Amino acid sequence: MLLEQINSPEDLKKLPIEDLPKLAEEIRTFLIESLSVTGGHLASNLGVVELTIALHYLFDSPRDKMLWDVGHQAYVHKILTGRRHLFSTLRQYQGLCGFPKRSESPHDCWETGHSSTSLSGAMGMAAARDLKGEDYKVIAIIGDGALTGGMALEALNHIGEEKKDLMVILNDNEMSISPNVGALHQYLGRLRTHRHYHKMKEEVEQFLKKIPAVGEPFAKTLERVKDSIKFLLVSGIFFETLGFTYLGPFDGHNIEELLKSLRQAERIKGPVLVHVVTKKGQGYKPAEDDSVGYHGVGTYKIESGAFKKKAGGAPAYPAVFGQTLVKLAEKDPRIVAITPAMITGSKLEKFQEKFPDRCFDVGIAEQHATTFAAGLATQGMKPVLAIYSTFLQRGYDQLVHDVCRQNLNVVFAVDRAGFVGEDGETHQGVFDIGFMRAQPNMVVMMPKDENELQHMLYTAIQYDDGPIAVRYSKSAGIGVEMDADFKLIPIGKSEVVRQGKDIVLLAFGSMVYPALKAAEKLAQQNIDARVINARFAKPLDEEMLLALSKEKLPIVTIEEGSMMGGFGSAVLEFFAGKGITDLRVKLLGVPDYFVEHGSIEDQRREVGLTPEQIANTVATTFFRQEVEV
Amino acid sequence: MLLEQINSPEDLKKLPIEDLPKLAEEIRTFLIESLSVTGGHLASNLGVVELTIALHYLFDSPRDKMLWDVGHQAYVHKILTGRRHLFSTLRQYQGLCGFPKRSESPHDCWETGHSSTSLSGAMGMAAARDLKGEDYKVIAIIGDGALTGGMALEALNHIGEEKKDLMVILNDNEMSISPNVGALHQYLGRLRTHRHYHKMKEEVEQFLKKIPAVGEPFAKTLERVKDSIKFLLVSGIFFETLGFTYLGPFDGHNIEELLKSLRQAERIKGPVLVHVVTKKGQGYKPAEDDSVGYHGVGTYKIESGAFKKKAGGAPAYPAVFGQTLVKLAEKDPRIVAITPAMITGSKLEKFQEKFPDRCFDVGIAEQHATTFAAGLATQGMKPVLAIYSTFLQRGYDQLVHDVCRQNLNVVFAVDRAGFVGEDGETHQGVFDIGFMRAQPNMVVMMPKDENELQHMLYTAIQYDDGPIAVRYSKSAGIGVEMDADFKLIPIGKSEVVRQGKDIVLLAFGSMVYPALKAAEKLAQQNIDARVINARFAKPLDEEMLLALSKEKLPIVTIEEGSMMGGFGSAVLEFFAGKGITDLRVKLLGVPDYFVEHGSIEDQRREVGLTPEQIANTVATTFFRQEVEV
Repeated sequence: MLLEQINSPEDLKKLPIEDLPKLAEEIRTFLIESLSVTGGHLASNLGVVELTIALHYLFDSPRDKMLWDVGHQAYVHKILTGRRHLFSTLRQYQGLCGFPKRSESPHDCWETGHSSTSLSGAMGMAAARDLKGEDYKVIAIIGDGALTGGMALEALNHIGEEKKDLMVILNDNEMSISPNVGALHQYLGRLRTHRHYHKMKEEVEQFLKKIPAVGEPFAKTLERVKDSIKFLLVSGIFFETLGFTYLGPFDGHNIEELLKSLRQAERIKGPVLVHVVTKKGQGYKPAEDDSVGYHGVGTYKIESGAFKKKAGGAPAYPAVFGQTLVKLAEKDPRIVAITPAMITGSKLEKFQEKFPDRCFDVGIAEQHATTFAAGLATQGMKPVLAIYSTFLQRGYDQLVHDVCRQNLNVVFAVDRAGFVGEDGETHQGVFDIGFMRAQPNMVVMMPKDENELQHMLYTAIQYDDGPIAVRYSKSAGIGVEMDADFKLIPIGKSEVVRQGKDIVLLAFGSMVYPALKAAEKLAQQNIDARVINARFAKPLDEEMLLALSKEKLPIVTIEEGSMMGGFGSAVLEFFAGKGITDLRVKLLGVPDYFVEHGSIEDQRREVGLTPEQIANTVATTFFRQEVEV
Repeated sequence: MLLEQINSPEDLKKLPIEDLPKLAEEIRTFLIESLSVTGGHLASNLGVVELTIALHYLFDSPRDKMLWDVGHQAYVHKILTGRRHLFSTLRQYQGLCGFPKRSESPHDCWETGHSSTSLSGAMGMAAARDLKGEDYKVIAIIGDGALTGGMALEALNHIGEEKKDLMVILNDNEMSISPNVGALHQYLGRLRTHRHYHKMKEEVEQFLKKIPAVGEPFAKTLERVKDSIKFLLVSGIFFETLGFTYLGPFDGHNIEELLKSLRQAERIKGPVLVHVVTKKGQGYKPAEDDSVGYHGVGTYKIESGAFKKKAGGAPAYPAVFGQTLVKLAEKDPRIVAITPAMITGSKLEKFQEKFPDRCFDVGIAEQHATTFAAGLATQGMKPVLAIYSTFLQRGYDQLVHDVCRQNLNVVFAVDRAGFVGEDGETHQGVFDIGFMRAQPNMVVMMPKDENELQHMLYTAIQYDDGPIAVRYSKSAGIGVEMDADFKLIPIGKSEVVRQGKDIVLLAFGSMVYPALKAAEKLAQQNIDARVINARFAKPLDEEMLLALSKEKLPIVTIEEGSMMGGFGSAVLEFFAGKGITDLRVKLLGVPDYFVEHGSIEDQRREVGLTPEQIANTVATTFFRQEVEV
């Protein structure tokens, strides 16, 4: 085993070039075996085995800086930088992070998780290097999907202008997470089909032979010049237009070719873009055949690639969203679905299949997705933007300026709201309550269970007074029965789900059932807790709150989101606004730090949101007693 | 006067083409005269007189949709759609809005203010049109500066893929607000220099003559093909690569040429980009010579163009920021300034002049600007991102994911915080307190006066524990004396600026002096108000708050920002967290709606933040008496 000798890039550099393909195979085997037990991002990492080896073979990390865009493809990098032995803990609580992490290793110089940030980070490092008179390489590795994100294009534009020495590796695997979309992708496709220089050379020579004598009408000549030679000059011109030297495309699974091209790139002054073509899932047939399915995987059987199914269980919220939207769209032609490259994650496959004209996958482009929805809404459509909470952060200004300010009927289906589990801190959906409720005209809902999700979605579609958001967890539902017919939920109305006379647990969305369980535990201590399903973080149920204030019971707000300006904060604002002072209100939710990876259960436990912890906090805070847990 | 007969696009269409240049001159004169009295965006509107006339002459608004990107160049559009008589109220309280406004006219189908949104909006409208089987034109008019914004590039990519019928007018005036930057701009520059087809044709013919026989080494041939013919094929290839038909460049001040090119564009199926070259300030020499200075103007003398100076007054906060940063940077080589196309607005001219290598104008690219700062900070630099509060919304995810999550030493100089005056609701800086304080690791400050601003900036530079923001108004300072030496302000420490025993006015930043004035008025009623300069919205001065809670005085928090999750809300959270219930806390700030244009004074009055109103609210709420105002 070569792999066992490799605990740092120095070890790697000791190997002769001829051994590198064997090392690549060993890494591939290690990944397939290790991830079959832990789960993780398989396909993308299998795609960059040779590329990562070549980079660490040639460059000098951590002196040279490597920035892994998105970062879910950094496993090979972690293996080569001394973290192979930690892979059994991958993405588990307090285990190895699934993304680059500065606290883990000096080789992780830049943390990622969201897409399209690496070029800006690299530009910052290159500028700092030059200002400080230092000398090292800065290398950003970015996928073709991430390249369509607006901020990556902003960065290309700036880098091209500043002409800093900086290397961009375009890891072109023909897909982001959903199959890639967009004109830029089609352009890359055209480059890709002309990988063979010989054929290209031949075509050009043929063309040059046919160049007509002067005198033929200019326009026609021009047309023919364009038609025949375009592909050649277009190769890289997109990037060269922006000031880059363009090299490629190269075979991303041929280490020798990669080393040669990277050495060539290293010698070039100014920004250089190396176009490398890789295959997601390379070397593992099940993943090659279904790289979307093997993007982020749970556990699976190595031989067949078959996923190990978890036993039964309730459908997850995203699945209920997907099914409900299809049902609604069958009856309402105004409904249009929009996703930023998350057809599969957001469970829009069925919708796309049934309503291809009404389903827009805009690529990794959350800003455009949000304002595109606004444009549709101006013309009477009912756009439903299915977007992860953490990625909606990218469309924040568009939510403010284009949707809420124009008060347009856009439905935000905010997926992955609350804790997100194994993806960890870059993907937590904990800020959306705060930033959405701060916007005028906005309605913000969260269902207590999957049945309420379908009703909220129906309600959102019927709602005609402006933007409305329904946020929901990625986790499995409660397992309740689904009503056959949709029900309208009155805007801003809560419901009491458990009567009680000692204290009020005012829970938002995913915290309603934990609050109910907490109430049961409290009942064992003879504490009689009322549980209210708030349903709305905006508008609040003011009538209910005023009534509560008269009862003078202590109130505990519970939310799966940041407490800084969140739901509980809204409740405090309401009481303060009414001049009500003699109420004890306690906020439970996500405290003021970034919660790392682990299971959703781990994360809830870390911040005190399990039923046992809620019960205990209530008992100790208000009743001076402990609850047995 | 032709102009007097034009009260709608229908009236315009009745004019013969030959009269249109005369109309253009009349509109120009009207603009110059009208804006000399009211102020407004002069240069950009002078640049689009002919273009706007041509668009309304040819197309059928409001059936056809025109989307004005950024929107400050929509005055001519407003004149031609029946709003000429309102120009004496331009940008004044309850007067004509300086941007497109749906409530003003059916011809304003899309509201703008922030840049780069028009393409996404247009794509939404075009998609809605096609889904509904309707038939109208959708035309987005976007400047070359706005085109570098990431979301515009995201939209181009999507439009190119979907191949919708949609027209983009690229209004290429060689600048955004600061002179334009970036590789894309250089590319447009290359197109621009080849406007004259005859010269181009000649060059191509010369080149074709010189094509060598087959046999010459391929590489060299290729090089020469590229060098000589590149500009020709590159023309539009950037856009054609993305799936657009490219037409142009055309002279944007020649109405006949414009009409001809727009008619040509109208006949093309799929997305078409019409490249129009205009000159900002066209036809008014002072504005032509200094289009940055004449971007947004106050009143001026028509003949000379000389601005009418306001008498004396304290320096405005942005000016103090600019001066202070230069002083700090002289002693600290780690300091780097970054601006997204706002060198002038953010008063970085001096800094740019003195430290050209340490000043980065990245163009309209707030996302990149923020993460670029993060990259610089990873390498020990002290990046200062000078950014308007409203535009920082564009960099929100980058602030969360790249800066706060990595806990990097980025200094946010948040300009135009609070009310922004005449630019109105799209530009209000009222959400930043809430969205910044919700982020772990963040420090959020606001100075009470210009002297404290310099100290806060100094403090921010010295601070080494993560991101720190100092927000400040665009308005004139208080007129206090400036200390000669910088002072460190202890993080999270407030100061008492007026003693008092009846009530506490806890004011943040720009509200400290109004609170002091309010206290004086209250004193006349024998109400003795203490005034505290909070300085920090995060971290709060917990010691001070705990001490206050023991005094049991009522507390009024006052901030120039949204009360939904803002500073006052943070204070409520703190007391709730400590289980303190018997305190009366009242929040004053910006309520939950978008405040329209007017003077800052008008806007403060509208929401009750003048000293008189504060005094009155305090007196009536807590002391059951009115204050004379």
